[in-house]
Parts: sequence; structure tokens; C-alpha cells
Amino acid sequence: MASQVDAAELTKSLIQCASVTPDEGGALTLLEALLSEAGFECTRADRGEVSNLFARWGARGANKSFGFNGHTDVVPVGDEAAWSVPPFGAVEKDGMIWGRGATDMKSGVAAFAAAAIEFVQDTPPDGAVILTITGDEEGDAVDGTTALLEHMQKAGERMDVCLVGEPTCPNEMGEMMKIGRRGSMTAWFTVTGVQGHSAYPHRANNPLSAMVRLMDSLASAELDQGTEHFDASTLAVVTIDTGNGATNVIPAQSRACVNIRFNDSHTGASLTAWLEGEAAKVRDAFGVGIDMKVKISGESFITPPGALSALVAKSVEAVTGRRPEMSTTGGTSDARFVKDHCPVVEFGLVGKTMHQVDERVETAQIHELKAIYKRILSDYFAG
Amino acid sequence: MASQVDAAELTKSLIQCASVTPDEGGALTLLEALLSEAGFECTRADRGEVSNLFARWGARGANKSFGFNGHTDVVPVGDEAAWSVPPFGAVEKDGMIWGRGATDMKSGVAAFAAAAIEFVQDTPPDGAVILTITGDEEGDAVDGTTALLEHMQKAGERMDVCLVGEPTCPNEMGEMMKIGRRGSMTAWFTVTGVQGHSAYPHRANNPLSAMVRLMDSLASAELDQGTEHFDASTLAVVTIDTGNGATNVIPAQSRACVNIRFNDSHTGASLTAWLEGEAAKVRDAFGVGIDMKVKISGESFITPPGALSALVAKSVEAVTGRRPEMSTTGGTSDARFVKDHCPVVEFGLVGKTMHQVDERVETAQIHELKAIYKRILSDYFAG
Ligand SMILES: [Zn+2]
Ligand SMILES: [Zn+2]
Repeated sequence: MASQVDAAELTKSLIQCASVTPDEGGALTLLEALLSEAGFECTRADRGEVSNLFARWGARGANKSFGFNGHTDVVPVGDEAAWSVPPFGAVEKDGMIWGRGATDMKSGVAAFAAAAIEFVQDTPPDGAVILTITGDEEGDAVDGTTALLEHMQKAGERMDVCLVGEPTCPNEMGEMMKIGRRGSMTAWFTVTGVQGHSAYPHRANNPLSAMVRLMDSLASAELDQGTEHFDASTLAVVTIDTGNGATNVIPAQSRACVNIRFNDSHTGASLTAWLEGEAAKVRDAFGVGIDMKVKISGESFITPPGALSALVAKSVEAVTGRRPEMSTTGGTSDARFVKDHCPVVEFGLVGKTMHQVDERVETAQIHELKAIYKRILSDYFAG
Repeated sequence: MASQVDAAELTKSLIQCASVTPDEGGALTLLEALLSEAGFECTRADRGEVSNLFARWGARGANKSFGFNGHTDVVPVGDEAAWSVPPFGAVEKDGMIWGRGATDMKSGVAAFAAAAIEFVQDTPPDGAVILTITGDEEGDAVDGTTALLEHMQKAGERMDVCLVGEPTCPNEMGEMMKIGRRGSMTAWFTVTGVQGHSAYPHRANNPLSAMVRLMDSLASAELDQGTEHFDASTLAVVTIDTGNGATNVIPAQSRACVNIRFNDSHTGASLTAWLEGEAAKVRDAFGVGIDMKVKISGESFITPPGALSALVAKSVEAVTGRRPEMSTTGGTSDARFVKDHCPVVEFGLVGKTMHQVDERVETAQIHELKAIYKRILSDYFAG
């Protein structure tokens, strides 16, 4: 049976589902129906307000299993009046499909769903193809892919490898895939001294003297020199604020914030300990109080170049003629959860208009992406 | 002829003149009449909106001349409803005279005017007693004592020594005189870099990295170790502000302000050059733009301990039983202008309620201050 699923049409149908996190908006229901019809065993792994879809073709515990991961939820449309099309209209014009989620990432979900259906129906593999699709990637991401992976563990389901279909190409289709990400954390500091008159600084204790020493020690520290697959970690002081308008007054308090992007030679915990140590040195030297609050947005992770990344790169090159760079740059994605389950890489189309007004995707890229995903599946099960 | 001028009553009459800068309010007119009547040759050295009074007893170009300097203008009353008395009512209760200018410094002017009149009438000296009284000390001070000194230069008038009658005692009558002041200046810095995303700091140039280096270099610099009559100079970073609320954004610009109190081993110009040098080092090291604006509020000055300060200290001790400390602390006064004319020291009563609501002075202190000033005059002309 030669099945045909038009990934561009499926993208349009998904865009028409107003699935702003945490609303499922009909998107997962639509995919569940489509995949069930095509012989996938579907399970909803909903949690809290969030809907999640697990779909497997082939036997549980099969010899080989290839997984895809993606999300159907989208960020809000923002200023709807600024859009030149209805955000959920899925208008097709100028060779592009327009609407919220067009690139991030309903096209990616449509491409891997279409590829998976056609692949298993045209050339049924000796193994399983698994789709994990969440409705909570753009939100807090606590009830999304995490819930799917917990469901899989309980149910004895497993992916041997996984490809996340997020947009990964900065400008040209095929130029970049991602094999990991830097970690990200933010620290807020409040330095408290003793207020006083600037003519009598010995009666005060200026928190700014301590603040600039601490911030200089952080900003000028070399965190590392980069690692095999990562650039050097970076720290940026993003703000220092005091709000003292009186030139003859030494303020009581000042606040600062630093943002750190870190590679696999650190963890959020190791950096927190380092920050605490630097703060303690300055606290002791200046006799001030230093309060620190830390938020770790994500740890760094990497799937070192190997069989999976080589397979994906080869398939991408076969279809596009471009050999994708193996990058660890950019923001966060659900690969940070999947990496605890199995080797994971990310590959998708060009993401230039993600989260913007007039988000749109070239229709041809959707077809190309579907072809790449099909090629990856056939190469994987042939190997 | 034994004349009597009640300095407390004169203080009350002066308080009743609502002489908020630059209004003369009748205060100088009253003093001019009183002094003329007592044989002083009076000249108004008014300039712009400001009234100033020059008064001399004795011959121009006399053998010896002792000068007093003071002001009759006062700061605004502020929240009149917060006063427990009418601010210009000169109410006397609880052994004190209440009202704006009670301590700063209508009591001082009244004390030296009364002392001078009684002294020249009771024991006419071989020399001149000169009073320079301005109506512009609390304001911009550009048309006040400066105008009086210019008038004197043109008219061939001169004081050999001068005593400024500002309040100088922190708590107890007689405990402190002032022989100089530290200089004061303020510098504002704007550091401009290149805005960017904190995930890609190499594409930005963080002005805060340069700012904290510059401020640390300034705050940790030892300007000097103090000089014979001065404490060490001090620098306080009084504010750093950026106003960047986005933790993933490196800001384009940050601002800071530092205040410097400096002794006689520096000048405003030498410190400005030092600040420029420090800023240039950081600018070159970080490739940022640094804009600096400087305001020199006053240079440091000193009348080194000598005949004048010894005379004043001895007279204060004779009347109060306390030997006054020779201090160079505190804010600005017109002594900074007089010092270019002749040796100058400052001595006055306790200034605790200066510029405050319910400003008030102990009546007994006014009489004591007048006695001290008389003693100074008689010791000066006896010497
Ligand atoms: Zn996405
Ligand atoms: Zn004053």
C-alpha cells in the first residue's frame, strides 16, 4: 500500500488549531486520529492542563526503535493587529505558509508525522517508529516531554535514538544540526552596606565598593577555554542598579544580575558554588551583606558525535547537498529532557521567524524536511 | 560711652526679616542702620538680585584690621505646617529662640555685630573693625561674599585677618573651630558599549565589564594618607545604574557617579586629570566609549595653625573653658572665598538644627558667642 501524506497540508491543518500553551487546540487530537488510522498505537500522556501524545508503530520492546520528538503548542500571537494575515489562518501565499507555529514547529511535527506514516506503510521496518509530541514546550515545560518520558518508562516503552524536529538552520536548509546545548543560569545579587554621607565615608560602608569588586571578579574570570564540542563558557553582568540620586549620599544597597552560558565543563551546581565563593570573599573583605539568588534554566548537555549524528548528517547531505555543522549553540529545547533517555540530536528547517509576527515557512522546505526525515528512517533501519 | 547691644534681641529682629535667598528681607537694612548709628562707615555692595553690606569702623588702610564675615540669607522654611512655631516669628521659649536662621546664622551675625559695636565704643582700638555681611551664601554664592571682596579690592579696603561666624560646634559650645575645608567634586560617567544577547557576548561589548573595572579602580585607589591638617581624601561611588530588566540582554550603556572629598594634596584639576587617565585606561582596554562630566564644588583650603587660630582658640577657651579642636571637616562656607583675601578661620555656636524644621538656638549661647567675639577683638588689638 503506497500511502501519501502531504506535510504542507498537514502543517496548515495544525496551524488552524489555536494551540497556545497549554491549550491543545485540537492539534494533538488531529494527529492522534491520523496516526491511529495509519496503524500507530496511540496513548495520551496528559498531565495537569497539558496534553501529550505518545504514538508507536511496531512492537513495544522491538529490536530497534527510532524516535521523533516535537511540540504542537505555540507562543501567543502578540499584537494581532501587527500581523498581515490571521495568525491561525494558515494562509498560503508567495510560496510560504503563514501563521503562528509555521516554523516553530508545526511544520516539523507535520514533516516527521508524514515521513513516519509513509515510511512504515511503504517499507515496514523490522523495529519501531515512535513519535513523542507534547503540548508544553513553550510554557514551563514541566508537564510536557518530561511527562511523556515518565509515561514511557512506566509503560516499558523506549526509543533507542531520538531526533528533535525543532528548527536548527540559521539561514539555509540543511546547514546546521544540534548535538547539544550550553547550560544557562542567572544569578541576582543584593549587596547591603551602611548608608551615610559621602563626606564621611568612614561612618558608612559603601555597598558599591564591594559590588564593583565582585562584578569585576566575575566578569573578568575565565570560566574555561572551551571544550571539544563547545565554545568557552561566558558570563555577562546584565545590570547593576542603585537608584541613588543624591551625590552626597552613600547608598545602603545595590543590586546586580549576571547571566552565565556554560559548557560541559561546568554544572549549574558547580557554578553556583563558584559564585558563592566569590561573593563570600568580597563579603569578608568589605564587611557587607551579600544575598544571592540563582536560577538554573538548563544544564549543558551533549550527544557526542557518533552513529546517530553521522546518520542524520549523511541523510541531510543526501537530500540538500549540504553537510550540516554539528552545533551546540542557541537557546533551550526539549532535547535537554530526551538526552536522559537516549542519544538525541536536533534537526529542522530554517527558524528565522520563530516567535515573531508574520511567522511563516517556505512550503518547499516542509517537503524537503519530510524527505530528509524519511531518508533518516530508511538509513537507520537499513543500517 | 558704655554701649549695650543685646545680641539675642538683635537675633530675634533679624529672624523676623524673611530673608530667604536672594531676598534681603530688611535684615541688611536693619544692620546698616544699627552700624551707621554706632559709627561704622557702611557701603552696600549689592550685585544682581543680591544685597551685601560692607561696614568699617576706623580708618581705611588702618594699621591693623580685624574682619568678620557672615550671611543673613536663609534657606526656605520647607513644610511650614511641620513647624511648631511661625518660622519668622522669632518666638522665645524654653530658653531658646526659634525660627529660620536662628543658628544659620542670624545669631552669629547678631553676636559679631553686637560685639563689634560694644568693643569699638567701649575701648576704641588703634585699627579697623570690618564686617562683611552677605545676602547670598545659601544660594549660588556668586553675588555674595565674592562681590564684597571685589568691592573691597576696588575700594582699597582690606582685612588683615577674618573670622567667619558660621556654626562650627557639633554638640557643645566651644569644642570646634575650623581652619580649612576639604575640597569637594562630583564626576558622572557614562560607559557605552554594544548591546547584544547574553548568549552571544562576543557579538556585543558589555559596558558593565568596563564600568565595574573603572569603578573598582577608583574606589580602591588610595588618594593619599592624609596631610598635616587633613584626613585622607576619600572617594565614594554613590550610584551605578543601568535599568536593564532583561536577563538575556547585554545593555548598551550604564551610568555611574562618584563623589570625592579631597585635601590640600590635590586640586579639582589634578583629580580631574587622574579620573580622565583612569577612564582612558579602561576605555582602551575594553574598547568602550566613556563620557565624563565633572563638577568641582570647592577646592580644599587651609589657614595653617598660626597667630589667628591661636588667638581664637585662646579666646574661646577663656570664655567657655573648652579648647576648640582645629578641624577641616564639614561642608562648604564662604571661608573658601575669604581665604584668597587674608587668613581666615571659622568659629560659631552649635549648629544642630541648621536648615531643619524648628531651627532654634539657645539664647545663652548667643550671649556667650558675643562674649567670645569681644574677647577675640580685645586680644587681637592688645597683641
Ligand atoms: Zn520550538
Ligand atoms: Zn550658613
